[in-house]
Amino acid sequence: MDYTASIQLILGELDLALNKVDEEKVGMLIEDILGAEKVFLTGVGRVMLSLQAFAKRLNHLGIDAHCVGDITEPAMTPRDILIVASGSGCSIVPVAIAKKAKELQGKIIHIGSNQNGDVAEYADYMVRIPVRTRLYLEDEIPSEQPMTSLFEQSLLLFCDAVALMIIDNRKLNIKDYWRAHANLE
Amino acid sequence: MDYTASIQLILGELDLALNKVDEEKVGMLIEDILGAEKVFLTGVGRVMLSLQAFAKRLNHLGIDAHCVGDITEPAMTPRDILIVASGSGCSIVPVAIAKKAKELQGKIIHIGSNQNGDVAEYADYMVRIPVRTRLYLEDEIPSEQPMTSLFEQSLLLFCDAVALMIIDNRKLNIKDYWRAHANLE
Amino acid sequence: MDYTASIQLILGELDLALNKVDEEKVGMLIEDILGAEKVFLTGVGRVMLSLQAFAKRLNHLGIDAHCVGDITEPAMTPRDILIVASGSGCSIVPVAIAKKAKELQGKIIHIGSNQNGDVAEYADYMVRIPVRTRLYLEDEIPSEQPMTSLFEQSLLLFCDAVALMIIDNRKLNIKDYWRAHANLE
Amino acid sequence: MDYTASIQLILGELDLALNKVDEEKVGMLIEDILGAEKVFLTGVGRVMLSLQAFAKRLNHLGIDAHCVGDITEPAMTPRDILIVASGSGCSIVPVAIAKKAKELQGKIIHIGSNQNGDVAEYADYMVRIPVRTRLYLEDEIPSEQPMTSLFEQSLLLFCDAVALMIIDNRKLNIKDYWRAHANLE
Repeated sequence: MDYTASIQLILGELDLALNKVDEEKVGMLIEDILGAEKVFLTGVGRVMLSLQAFAKRLNHLGIDAHCVGDITEPAMTPRDILIVASGSGCSIVPVAIAKKAKELQGKIIHIGSNQNGDVAEYADYMVRIPVRTRLYLEDEIPSEQPMTSLFEQSLLLFCDAVALMIIDNRKLNIKDYWRAHANLE
Repeated sequence: MDYTASIQLILGELDLALNKVDEEKVGMLIEDILGAEKVFLTGVGRVMLSLQAFAKRLNHLGIDAHCVGDITEPAMTPRDILIVASGSGCSIVPVAIAKKAKELQGKIIHIGSNQNGDVAEYADYMVRIPVRTRLYLEDEIPSEQPMTSLFEQSLLLFCDAVALMIIDNRKLNIKDYWRAHANLE
Repeated sequence: MDYTASIQLILGELDLALNKVDEEKVGMLIEDILGAEKVFLTGVGRVMLSLQAFAKRLNHLGIDAHCVGDITEPAMTPRDILIVASGSGCSIVPVAIAKKAKELQGKIIHIGSNQNGDVAEYADYMVRIPVRTRLYLEDEIPSEQPMTSLFEQSLLLFCDAVALMIIDNRKLNIKDYWRAHANLE
Repeated sequence: MDYTASIQLILGELDLALNKVDEEKVGMLIEDILGAEKVFLTGVGRVMLSLQAFAKRLNHLGIDAHCVGDITEPAMTPRDILIVASGSGCSIVPVAIAKKAKELQGKIIHIGSNQNGDVAEYADYMVRIPVRTRLYLEDEIPSEQPMTSLFEQSLLLFCDAVALMIIDNRKLNIKDYWRAHANLE
């Protein structure tokens, strides 16, 4: 496979996946992010990396976001939300954290593909990106990419689309964000 | 801006950016990755997150890859390569690391947009994704996204395209990768 | 409190705590570390930081050690061990990981203070550093330090004592370790 | 070497090292931490882990502390301080960051052993823990531990002594800190 074919395969899968997301749920997610005192994010592996990118951008926009496990992670309260990203909804650590967040009375939003995963029990609602998970469910968009690459990529672009919508809604000036941006590295 | 418009904007920018990359350089990069004893990766912020996702996938493919700063980072030798990702080529930490890698006689590959950044002095060659950096250079593809989002996204998808090409070239069976995948979380 | 008093308080508590550890269990731990194919480590917060320091040193000694969640974390097999550090033995994430490791048939060693925590169900044995946890148990050494500082400090020094014993047992030459040490930063 | 001997060796070295620190400099450091708007911390490897433990505790005490490279790292301003920990004062990345912090007009404090390292050019003052570095300088306390273990251990305990002094000075109630402590893991 040459480079051009490889890029077209990836962008084609992403186009299909991202356009399957329910717009109404995106609106609910944005409302919850803007209404929360703090936003917590949890996931594992490459999924966590996409969430860390989201956390970083949210902070630039003035939103107090923390990945669970961060050095400066504060305590969760009922005024906060937890975003759990897991394609299968069954990743052990995120499910354990969702259970704890429920006890702490925070709102929990699941971003994933499988609607019947273990996290469903704790999530207030789900934003579904219906792509191939480890479970190979019938109604998921298949992918020729290895493992759950498509979910990890979709998640990064989905989160950046959400950031773009927040910027647009609030009429923020893009050049201003650099002021909050880390400047030591 | 609604969700669909936001997604189309992002995917449109990515399509433009990723198709500008020189195929010959992609071939050189793959050859160097497959020929190296160890692959080191360095960058900062969201760029580092895209590299971490790449490091994770390379390890699944049996390639010994390490992000600089990782807990288990080994010593670099002349049989290793360093991939430096920096849109501007001027990020302080990656440039300092490239300088050190040069002293250690490793091969250095820059993935970025600006051809005249500080890292150019140390890089053996550059893979150019010509997108808007903090420097707002004339020949870069502009972006309506905040900061250097487009570079960070392009980098993740570019690296995943490289992984896909490696898999295809080696006739690897995708389902096998799960065997090397972390299974505790 | 002046600096000298503060240092004496900390060193005094550490002396008391570290000398309460059962030497036989230390021997079992070292044997398991040297006999395992891979060593996995898990904990949260400052406890995880002490474990990361241990993982780094073990790698210098040629032992294949990984913190759960690391970018390059491999798959666990029955030939591996998992070290779970948790004072209370009840930290949610480490307990969830211990449960999973048990399913994968790895050996599990708990380093902590509370013998009756949730992790006890999964651990093959416990190395006890009997210091004040969040639970304020009766048989724990009290501490005037905030939160579980004493456990986190004890854990770092305990792990470094174990590393020192491994070096001594194997007649390793200390200056050799620099060869495996990260050299890019 | 048995466990007890190993522990005595480590605690003995720590006692010697920590009691060599100049109390006046400790007072200056505490004043700067309490007077700063934000505290940034940088180091590499196991030294960085000791600093991350310090950052976590400072946040519990209500002090806005960030390790350079953290996901939520904000921008540095002239009202902030940077603490650079490096035994040799020559670690590449921390020196590059100190140089940048100087340009941003923040105050820079070096915690290390070597008074003549590259970071000296940028540091406003130094808190010296005079222990064996990679440089094997004449006036450093020698150590039978591998590599720079003694500096990394001393640094953790030194920082915890500073935290203890801050708590004592401010008459803070230790049990209150749990309220700011991460509660999801």
